[in-house]
Amino acid sequence: MCLTPAVRTGELFDLLRDGRPWTRAQLADATGLARSTITTRIDTLMRLGLVAPFGGARSTGGRPPALFALNPTAQLVVGIDVGATHARAALTDLNGSILGEVDAQLAVADGPGPVLTWVVESVRDLLAGSERPIGDLAAIGIGLPGPVEHSTGRPINPPIMPGWDRYDVPGHLQAHYPVPVLVDNDVNIMALGERRRHLRDVDDLVLIKVATGIGAGIVSGGVLQRGAQGTAGDLGHVRVPGADDVPCRCGNTGCLEAVAAGPALAAAVRALGEQAETGGDVVELVRAGSQPAMAVVRQAGRDIGEVVATMVNLINPSVVVIGGQVAGAGEHLLAGIRESVYQRSLPLATEHLRIVTSRAGGEAAVLGASALAIEHVLSPEVVEAASEALAAADAAAEAGLQRSL
Amino acid sequence: MCLTPAVRTGELFDLLRDGRPWTRAQLADATGLARSTITTRIDTLMRLGLVAPFGGARSTGGRPPALFALNPTAQLVVGIDVGATHARAALTDLNGSILGEVDAQLAVADGPGPVLTWVVESVRDLLAGSERPIGDLAAIGIGLPGPVEHSTGRPINPPIMPGWDRYDVPGHLQAHYPVPVLVDNDVNIMALGERRRHLRDVDDLVLIKVATGIGAGIVSGGVLQRGAQGTAGDLGHVRVPGADDVPCRCGNTGCLEAVAAGPALAAAVRALGEQAETGGDVVELVRAGSQPAMAVVRQAGRDIGEVVATMVNLINPSVVVIGGQVAGAGEHLLAGIRESVYQRSLPLATEHLRIVTSRAGGEAAVLGASALAIEHVLSPEVVEAASEALAAADAAAEAGLQRSL
Repeated sequence: MCLTPAVRTGELFDLLRDGRPWTRAQLADATGLARSTITTRIDTLMRLGLVAPFGGARSTGGRPPALFALNPTAQLVVGIDVGATHARAALTDLNGSILGEVDAQLAVADGPGPVLTWVVESVRDLLAGSERPIGDLAAIGIGLPGPVEHSTGRPINPPIMPGWDRYDVPGHLQAHYPVPVLVDNDVNIMALGERRRHLRDVDDLVLIKVATGIGAGIVSGGVLQRGAQGTAGDLGHVRVPGADDVPCRCGNTGCLEAVAAGPALAAAVRALGEQAETGGDVVELVRAGSQPAMAVVRQAGRDIGEVVATMVNLINPSVVVIGGQVAGAGEHLLAGIRESVYQRSLPLATEHLRIVTSRAGGEAAVLGASALAIEHVLSPEVVEAASEALAAADAAAEAGLQRSL
Repeated sequence: MCLTPAVRTGELFDLLRDGRPWTRAQLADATGLARSTITTRIDTLMRLGLVAPFGGARSTGGRPPALFALNPTAQLVVGIDVGATHARAALTDLNGSILGEVDAQLAVADGPGPVLTWVVESVRDLLAGSERPIGDLAAIGIGLPGPVEHSTGRPINPPIMPGWDRYDVPGHLQAHYPVPVLVDNDVNIMALGERRRHLRDVDDLVLIKVATGIGAGIVSGGVLQRGAQGTAGDLGHVRVPGADDVPCRCGNTGCLEAVAAGPALAAAVRALGEQAETGGDVVELVRAGSQPAMAVVRQAGRDIGEVVATMVNLINPSVVVIGGQVAGAGEHLLAGIRESVYQRSLPLATEHLRIVTSRAGGEAAVLGASALAIEHVLSPEVVEAASEALAAADAAAEAGLQRSL
């Protein structure tokens, strides 16, 4: 790890990210940098718009302002959640506060063309609605319902996304908006969103989405775990004991999705004489008091709980959040999950374990996509690169000025 | 995150930890600190013995040495591996090079008294054998065969360690050696040791120990994953599909340990007419060409593979290392594991996956215990605390001097 002095602008900014105001003297103390250096770098951050004077009253006449803080409104990001049959986009500031939102019924299976056209239009509409110039857009975060190679932003063999395999999602969007585009799978961003909104102090959490498919986003030690190829959290095709005769669309038998995702629950409810096409229908039946639907959901909870018990043994989270459409069945689902987990997991791992339904709900994914984009925009490396670009532009302007003299 | 200027000694040292030599000018460039500050802090690190002049030839006469580097021989640590029926201790320098080793047949079930007495004597004997003073001992790392609360160093409800529950292991050892004592479970330290010795560039690995019990150490993104309560990697009591009728000593049925750990393999081999008491006996039979033993090991591989497949789906490591006594069965075991994993795991997660037996073998655990201790000794926080203690001692000496004048 060889730090160059230049990296210090990004690192200095890292201190300001918490939102508290700082004086130059405090920043000099905290970094060990000379006061004159601090002044230069604060100037750069102010020109980038990332930092602003705080408490304007203290800055009078020609004196430089005494306090500086992160300026959350300086730039905007858009967080986008593309699901199997719907999509949602939210414009937020650098605090993740939502300034505008749009959604649409949209099939991801229609392919990247129609879906990304909707994304491009939504970003434009959200910016127009906020009356902010396009230059204020700093990044786009987007979640897709399948495995994504996070480093390139390309979906890899996504089972329910025909036409998307290795599609250059960032390239497509960057033809319209020349900003960083961060892509991840929908469940990872849900975990980020739930944590950002409701579980900020929880460093070890698992979010399990139960909808048309089943997947998990894992945060350990405060860090989203993507694994070596970005496929961590692939819960849907873990084998459930006792379900060996149930075929799955993946070609194996006994997968969790084959017994506990929305379509399986609807089929089980139909077999008991009720009408249901989707997991959402099953949730409606549960809410209406249908005994067969309640029994089906509780059994699905036990099956999900078998795999959650394994996750608890292997990963030892302190909170397991159940999200996605089927989480709407609430306590009926949680009771089944808890039943299996408390029976199968190590007592030490369950002693302080909380198993809850998502509170961010339908907004978890857009909030997480926005968080992914904000993390990137505010990272020391990106702030540093912006500072260097500004210095290079200054140098070029200076050289031009000298030639013209 | 509020860095005080004082923290910079630890951070400066962080640059030197890679072992390469640095000049004062390079260190000033890399940190942005003034040259005079670098000189003061290098002086502190040299007084602590952690940094030494490098390439003595360049330092002539009264001139200060031009190059500085980590001094790996400055301090020593002892890594200790306590297994169910054996124990081993190794004295290493700060590079993890082994300077001396002792081992013993020792039952952890005898309780903390006899076991820790052996540890205390072994540390004394190893130091005596190295002809280094006791003051050179910087820390002790120790692995125990059960769940450990890493923050306090206390075993928590360890199933095969009667008398150890919540025992203050660091306190016991610190009554003899006033140094930091780091305690972790045996499988976590094996993962650290295997990585340090053979897989330095692998950031996502799982080490699975198959012996009297079965457990896993998980490294993700280069960080050992302990989970919220330190129980991550508890593989032994995950339910194996198809083994529902097999009772486990934990009270549940179908646990991986009940079908694939050493005692289960020995029982299965006996049922086929061979003689075996332990997993080690089964490995001997496999090596001698016993068909029944080979069949039993291969089936154990398939059962372990079912759970490894789940780990691959959930965690997405790039290397799975099989260690412990039963790993001696080599390809017979690996073939069964691979069979299940390639059938059950997502293709993207297995595309670049390697499944191998441990190369560090019997030394993985002591190397990992030593690595745990070294990590602590060389951490910026600990180096900083040592610097501050030195400064306080200087100030006290100065005050004493002034009084005596």
